[in-house]
Amino acid sequence: MASKPSIPKGTRDFSPTEVAKRQYIIQIIKTNFEKFGFQPIETPSFENSETLMGKYGEEGDRLIFKILNSGDYLSKANEAHLEAKDSTKLTSSISEKALRYDLTVPFARYVVQHQNEIEFPFKRYQIQPVWRADRPQKGRFREFFQCDADVVGSKSLWQEVELVQLYDTVFTSLGLNGVTIKINNRKILSGIAEVIGASDKLIDFTVALDKLDKIGEDGVKKEMMEKGISEEALVKVQPLFSFTGTISDKINQLSDLLSSSEEGMKGVEELRFICDNVSNLGLSTAILDLDVTLARGLNYYTGAIFEIGAPKTVAMGSIGGGGRYDDLTGIFGLKNMSGVGISFGLDRIYLVLEELQLFPETVAATSKALFINYGDKEAFYALKAIQELRKENIKVELYPENVKVGKQFQHADKRAIPFAVIVGEQEIESNSYSLKNLLTGEQVSVDLEGLKKALLD
Amino acid sequence: MASKPSIPKGTRDFSPTEVAKRQYIIQIIKTNFEKFGFQPIETPSFENSETLMGKYGEEGDRLIFKILNSGDYLSKANEAHLEAKDSTKLTSSISEKALRYDLTVPFARYVVQHQNEIEFPFKRYQIQPVWRADRPQKGRFREFFQCDADVVGSKSLWQEVELVQLYDTVFTSLGLNGVTIKINNRKILSGIAEVIGASDKLIDFTVALDKLDKIGEDGVKKEMMEKGISEEALVKVQPLFSFTGTISDKINQLSDLLSSSEEGMKGVEELRFICDNVSNLGLSTAILDLDVTLARGLNYYTGAIFEIGAPKTVAMGSIGGGGRYDDLTGIFGLKNMSGVGISFGLDRIYLVLEELQLFPETVAATSKALFINYGDKEAFYALKAIQELRKENIKVELYPENVKVGKQFQHADKRAIPFAVIVGEQEIESNSYSLKNLLTGEQVSVDLEGLKKALLD
Repeated sequence: MASKPSIPKGTRDFSPTEVAKRQYIIQIIKTNFEKFGFQPIETPSFENSETLMGKYGEEGDRLIFKILNSGDYLSKANEAHLEAKDSTKLTSSISEKALRYDLTVPFARYVVQHQNEIEFPFKRYQIQPVWRADRPQKGRFREFFQCDADVVGSKSLWQEVELVQLYDTVFTSLGLNGVTIKINNRKILSGIAEVIGASDKLIDFTVALDKLDKIGEDGVKKEMMEKGISEEALVKVQPLFSFTGTISDKINQLSDLLSSSEEGMKGVEELRFICDNVSNLGLSTAILDLDVTLARGLNYYTGAIFEIGAPKTVAMGSIGGGGRYDDLTGIFGLKNMSGVGISFGLDRIYLVLEELQLFPETVAATSKALFINYGDKEAFYALKAIQELRKENIKVELYPENVKVGKQFQHADKRAIPFAVIVGEQEIESNSYSLKNLLTGEQVSVDLEGLKKALLD
Repeated sequence: MASKPSIPKGTRDFSPTEVAKRQYIIQIIKTNFEKFGFQPIETPSFENSETLMGKYGEEGDRLIFKILNSGDYLSKANEAHLEAKDSTKLTSSISEKALRYDLTVPFARYVVQHQNEIEFPFKRYQIQPVWRADRPQKGRFREFFQCDADVVGSKSLWQEVELVQLYDTVFTSLGLNGVTIKINNRKILSGIAEVIGASDKLIDFTVALDKLDKIGEDGVKKEMMEKGISEEALVKVQPLFSFTGTISDKINQLSDLLSSSEEGMKGVEELRFICDNVSNLGLSTAILDLDVTLARGLNYYTGAIFEIGAPKTVAMGSIGGGGRYDDLTGIFGLKNMSGVGISFGLDRIYLVLEELQLFPETVAATSKALFINYGDKEAFYALKAIQELRKENIKVELYPENVKVGKQFQHADKRAIPFAVIVGEQEIESNSYSLKNLLTGEQVSVDLEGLKKALLD
């Protein structure tokens, strides 16, 4: 191979600094998941195709990466499909496994498969990569991590309350203040659909309503009527065009608006319970906001819907989301298993922290000191000290070769190592070490204890 | 889907306890990698097929999982191979990507691709899953983690010295005392091949020699002669049949034995440098042993070879290995980049720690206390306390539903949660909490500060 090697489009190599920053975010998410009682599980990177196919719609099926069967896969290929050169139909006879597309379906599969070992309600978290054969673009990759926390086996709305708190706690821990936790409820949306007279108009309705800030009430109404929503219907939902005030105010308006819809009123009740309790318990830095245009994963969610907006100073889409689903495991034959979960968008959170310079300076800390190598005798003396320092959990390194000292100092500099330790004939004789601060240039002579103290901080 | 779902053979689901135990091992390996100056990188799960194919021999090529191209992959399929139903040849025209087979080749690709950003010598570690379409069997999986640390860009033998120390430090940290770090050198093996007259007999020779303990000197010699090694050759390597004593003794014997082989003597020198320095610096709990039968990855390594044997009380193969390779990145066009690395076998280390009961009892610690749910008013009061406890990083949970108290206590029991906190009318009135130790049954009334203290420990 003569040309420089490369990686598949939509995938990434992560450098030491990038890994450290990603791990920093993941560690904070993990710690808080556990603090809230969630336990980790891991599932295989690939699942049997039948587990995944048909779970994400036609588009999803197309975006799932399929793994070619090993060995003489053509011997079992469907003759007719092969003859017809029908790629889509042939796939199932030459590929039995596929890379996971998200963590939710594998989780549902896990719950059903292990239902007898699981103690419900089951609070699990899962932080693993997923793969999608999507067209790569800025911020969209073919391999990326999902960080999910879900509870299954209870319909209690206290879980929604705690999940809002969990979002608040994680973003506060990351130093990312002022995120908006948008909340809505699928039943509110159903109620609105009832009131405007047709559920097939619901998406048009919410899409138009979402533009209120930009195009004003008249613009929104015009768009809605163009989409076939009647003027009469618009009168009924008039309050939504001046939907302001506290969350409490908004909920009261919704209550009036949806009074004729049983499902809508159920949604109002749920929203009130969640928002009242969240508000009475208090959030640290996040802002809870009721957004009736929030309609993510309409087919999937049945109760609360969440979406996280980055602080307004940053132009970035949603950095997390989730909601309540009443029948996740039904697809695998286990009925009546309600669940609710949230997800953190690792890649976007990374970009936001980068933009706001919120990563701690020490996040990618390399070694604390580089021992300069003056030859085998000196290297041996250095390694004796290094051994002791490492026992104190101090990260230190020996430059492996006795090359020009300038080159060794340059190495420390390029690696952003803050100290150099110089050990020559003289230091060995006096059983000491010359410690040089590479930022200030200051150099002191210390014994082993002094070295430990200086490098521990 | 009516039948219970399952996962592909050779793959695994990991339960919360299993994840916690695996993470415990990984965390210790990671911490020590970093303490020794290694920095993490991550590479994509799949690589371009041309990056991987041809790097692991014919057998390896067969065991690489190939990913089917997306979309109408048959439109670009090679007509002739399709016609001939030649699965092996067709693959490259319908699959362009493949799951990584190990971490070494992706690392070599990374170094070449990013050579201008990397500061050499480059000490990197990588802990990621790899995939092999091997026949699954006990302890052998199709998806498993590798934990590798390598240095590239320096031939210094101090790195071998430090890698032996790194092995010692990791296993000591894991509480796994008495592992054997077997060392050999590819050049010693070349020397032996020279002495016995033919390098094509080298594997037969080492395989037979390895049976010395079991079948005795005569048995070994008989087997060697059957394989075509001459009696004259056996006389020359006679010292290997009584190869005992300290490492120093052994090296002296090798020095005599290989005096006619230039490469062999280079190997003796390297071994002596590494072993002398390791011995003078001292190991904590591991035992260094020179094993001339050690011949892993013959084609790959060019200098030191390492292999880790579990403590003798456990029947388990190698739990780690590595060595020096002089031309790893040559396959991608970057010459003269010597490297040396070691690897930890996560799955086997897990089994050994399990067998010797070396996992800390707290490894899979769930929540510290479960708050019993007596209704919404009580739950709210409980959540106020929970919020405060979580700020102190104490893991606590609220049982989400107001079901029978017995069921809630049972939940705590099954989840191995050590404390229950009872909050009823009475506790709310007196602004207190009843804390019950579920092991002893002892129950005390405390205020919030008391609760914090009791649960912090």
